[in-house]
Amino acid sequence: MSTVPVAPSPGPDPAVDHLSPERLAPASSLPGRLAPGADPLYEQVAAHYRHAIHSGTMPVGSRMPSVRALMGLHRVSLTTALQACRLLESQGLLQARQRAGYFVRAPRPRLARAAEPRQSRADPAQFVGVHQRVSTVLMQAGQAQVRVHLGGACAAPSLYPVKALALQAQRLLRRRPELLGEAPEPRGHPLLRAALARQALDAGLQLHPQQVLVTHGCTEALGIALRATTQPGDTVAVESPTYYGLLQILETLGLRALEIPASPHTGLSLPALQEAARREPGLKAVVVVPHLQNPLGSLMPDDSKQALLAWCEQMDRALIEDDTYAALADQPQRAIKSWDQTGRVIFCASLHKTLAPGMRLGWMTGGRWQARVEVLKYAQSRPNEMLGQAAVAEFLMAGHMARHLRSLRARLADQREVMAQLLSDHLPEGTRMSLPPGGMNLWVELPEGLSSMALFEAALTRGVRIAPGAMFSNSMRFDRCIRINAGYLMDDAQREAVQTLGELCRQLQGRSVAGVFLPQP
Amino acid sequence: MSTVPVAPSPGPDPAVDHLSPERLAPASSLPGRLAPGADPLYEQVAAHYRHAIHSGTMPVGSRMPSVRALMGLHRVSLTTALQACRLLESQGLLQARQRAGYFVRAPRPRLARAAEPRQSRADPAQFVGVHQRVSTVLMQAGQAQVRVHLGGACAAPSLYPVKALALQAQRLLRRRPELLGEAPEPRGHPLLRAALARQALDAGLQLHPQQVLVTHGCTEALGIALRATTQPGDTVAVESPTYYGLLQILETLGLRALEIPASPHTGLSLPALQEAARREPGLKAVVVVPHLQNPLGSLMPDDSKQALLAWCEQMDRALIEDDTYAALADQPQRAIKSWDQTGRVIFCASLHKTLAPGMRLGWMTGGRWQARVEVLKYAQSRPNEMLGQAAVAEFLMAGHMARHLRSLRARLADQREVMAQLLSDHLPEGTRMSLPPGGMNLWVELPEGLSSMALFEAALTRGVRIAPGAMFSNSMRFDRCIRINAGYLMDDAQREAVQTLGELCRQLQGRSVAGVFLPQP
Repeated sequence: MSTVPVAPSPGPDPAVDHLSPERLAPASSLPGRLAPGADPLYEQVAAHYRHAIHSGTMPVGSRMPSVRALMGLHRVSLTTALQACRLLESQGLLQARQRAGYFVRAPRPRLARAAEPRQSRADPAQFVGVHQRVSTVLMQAGQAQVRVHLGGACAAPSLYPVKALALQAQRLLRRRPELLGEAPEPRGHPLLRAALARQALDAGLQLHPQQVLVTHGCTEALGIALRATTQPGDTVAVESPTYYGLLQILETLGLRALEIPASPHTGLSLPALQEAARREPGLKAVVVVPHLQNPLGSLMPDDSKQALLAWCEQMDRALIEDDTYAALADQPQRAIKSWDQTGRVIFCASLHKTLAPGMRLGWMTGGRWQARVEVLKYAQSRPNEMLGQAAVAEFLMAGHMARHLRSLRARLADQREVMAQLLSDHLPEGTRMSLPPGGMNLWVELPEGLSSMALFEAALTRGVRIAPGAMFSNSMRFDRCIRINAGYLMDDAQREAVQTLGELCRQLQGRSVAGVFLPQP
Repeated sequence: MSTVPVAPSPGPDPAVDHLSPERLAPASSLPGRLAPGADPLYEQVAAHYRHAIHSGTMPVGSRMPSVRALMGLHRVSLTTALQACRLLESQGLLQARQRAGYFVRAPRPRLARAAEPRQSRADPAQFVGVHQRVSTVLMQAGQAQVRVHLGGACAAPSLYPVKALALQAQRLLRRRPELLGEAPEPRGHPLLRAALARQALDAGLQLHPQQVLVTHGCTEALGIALRATTQPGDTVAVESPTYYGLLQILETLGLRALEIPASPHTGLSLPALQEAARREPGLKAVVVVPHLQNPLGSLMPDDSKQALLAWCEQMDRALIEDDTYAALADQPQRAIKSWDQTGRVIFCASLHKTLAPGMRLGWMTGGRWQARVEVLKYAQSRPNEMLGQAAVAEFLMAGHMARHLRSLRARLADQREVMAQLLSDHLPEGTRMSLPPGGMNLWVELPEGLSSMALFEAALTRGVRIAPGAMFSNSMRFDRCIRINAGYLMDDAQREAVQTLGELCRQLQGRSVAGVFLPQP
């Protein structure tokens, strides 16, 4: 993607004549001067040509207007024209040819859309027990020579504003080296807490900075939220599949996990939760990731979020909202906490995925449990160190976050498309997945007979790391699934790695067939 | 202390004649050229004059040789001569007079040596319950306008090598800003873990870097150690008095605290522990601070440390060693963990008091519980952020720590002396304390009838914060004690603050007498 071939067009472009927008769409939708405020300009340009391609107006093999032509036709900048072409490329509609420009490509078979969960009922709650499996996976991965890491859940470091943050930190270190020598402020840096409260407005939250408690990532926030609302032996409802880190937290706190079926599209199933809760008097809290759930990438619709909150209110259960990925959604998302009138929701969030994975900054607001949450954080790890908080506070207060997030979301959207296409090219027939509306996680369901653990181990011997689905549940229910990270720019190593996964799937499929049909020697 | 009045001596000093060292001591001990390798030079010079003062050779009111004279007489540097005078001043032997130099002062009554604990038996173990009191204290202090903070337990930021650390961090940020964007290394920065393992050699520990786990301060390490070795409802033995933070950890983990009497001189009483343990089958772990216990400042003798370890071994109890302050002891201390052959000891340590209070870096090694400890840390807060770790690793690897610690210890020794003298000048008759052999905490026992909580509240209204003894136990047993921080350079504000404490004590004493004797109106 970094070498987008833009054909130099010193004179008028031949493509312009037969592809001028006036001939492609009714006049009302003509983007001569594109409408501001609606979709981003590049998306409007891309939509225009997408329509032309789908309708057959631009057949396979036809040439896309050059970037220079697009600039003139739609009165957009070079960047916008390029972005439009790259978007169409990432969506598999255009193909770049070296020094010749973009051409409409033959449609590739897309992966089947992810299926709704097969079981609609929760298993009985259990003390988790997933830890051994997760530890084994992490240990094996840690010992292997990993060349390509597709199992993570962060974007490439270059997609985060590390230089701007580093400059802020350097400035602070020059101006106030005592920061390193002073006992940190309780509950977090005041400026950061103010900046986070301001940022939370985007999710519909009205918070006073005093209600913001800075934590070591969302992980610490979730653990504290659970400690504030449950006792060992209690039951906690979680989505299924869910982030293995959450299962580990439950396990180490002696809590039982009640795994509630979740849709890859709309997230947690409230009817399934309601039914399971009837059999679980020990259910004390629900942990939910309404936006870009990890690993599913689902988005709960607003009415589902409100219904869940109403049910928790009625049943007097704590609702713990994990908002780690929300800011990476293509569209703004409203937090459940924004409808919370009674302090029922503990809201946990993080800058780990959105701003700086190396800084481990999370935060939470505890609703009716705020005092308890503050005590637990203080007794567990005291306030966070100050330098990182101060640097991030300056970055946020300078208003840089919104622009960074726009750019990160656009890049991730492209990268998801490219990775999904690659997976569709190489994984065997019967593989299913959906493109999530944001983030970097792709949740892929392999065909019957394949095991993610077997694929994980085989891939590791080839230097490729994936996150096996078996980590994301206490049961082996998701052993056919894998989570793939689209957070990195596609490069040859990643292309080869996905190809390798495809090969290994076919080998493993052969082996499992062989195991069934071949006579024993 | 920052305005040490050194009389300018343009010519030969008149004091030199009658106070030349040759006339003060036998020839063998004459520090014409002071002996290298023994005590620091300034201490040798100071000892010389201390002897002269105590023997009456230099009577009260006599003038100390000028700094310039000392330089010539003992062939020492300006710094050394100054340090010697300041030490004698801090010990109450000299008094500085503006523009006139130092004079021998009238001996002041020293505070009575701290008494051994009155009760020798532990109270029954209890679910702690101190939290409400501690929270109230912290909240009141947080809301007050504190001008002088004598209630902390860190040295002044200027006593930590914050500039050197800031430079390391700036270099790293320039060279590798990606540090902020990469997911942190599990278990901690490899270079830091290696540096900490190397540093632990000083305490007699032989550790592989793989056995070092970086945590958020010693607080997180202690909590994880307790979670690894106990279940909610179990009993944990702690020193009495003990750091309120430990009591909060126990309380939030649902553990019962068994407070074992401890001597202000030799720390935990093993006989008291043994007796208490006979009545406590639920006792699962002992947490001990063998070196510069907070708040007592005690040092356990080596044979007590070994006996405690042997007893834990025999009784199959976990031993959790908190080594936070050890490096601040005037003499090197050997960790209990150094005698541990079976992995019985979880060793928890910190750079918070010794290197950089703002960085919140702690670490631990888990003995036989290492695997469990690693899981708990991972599930609780994931690895620490990397920048601080990397900067500290560079600092340690460059070998700067030993020199920094030497200088910090010397400064703290001076400051303890000065603060102790000031307390002795102002606190009422009957006050007791001992000078601890290191660190910055002074544990002061007020006369009968005074309450630390009352003094705390009264002092807060005057802008002075202290740590009331009632925070350091579940009972009110230590309500007559206060912990005073000697970590800051003495200045006028601190002098006034101590004076204020003395006044308030007398007011409170009067009030308590009045409450008993005066007729009700």
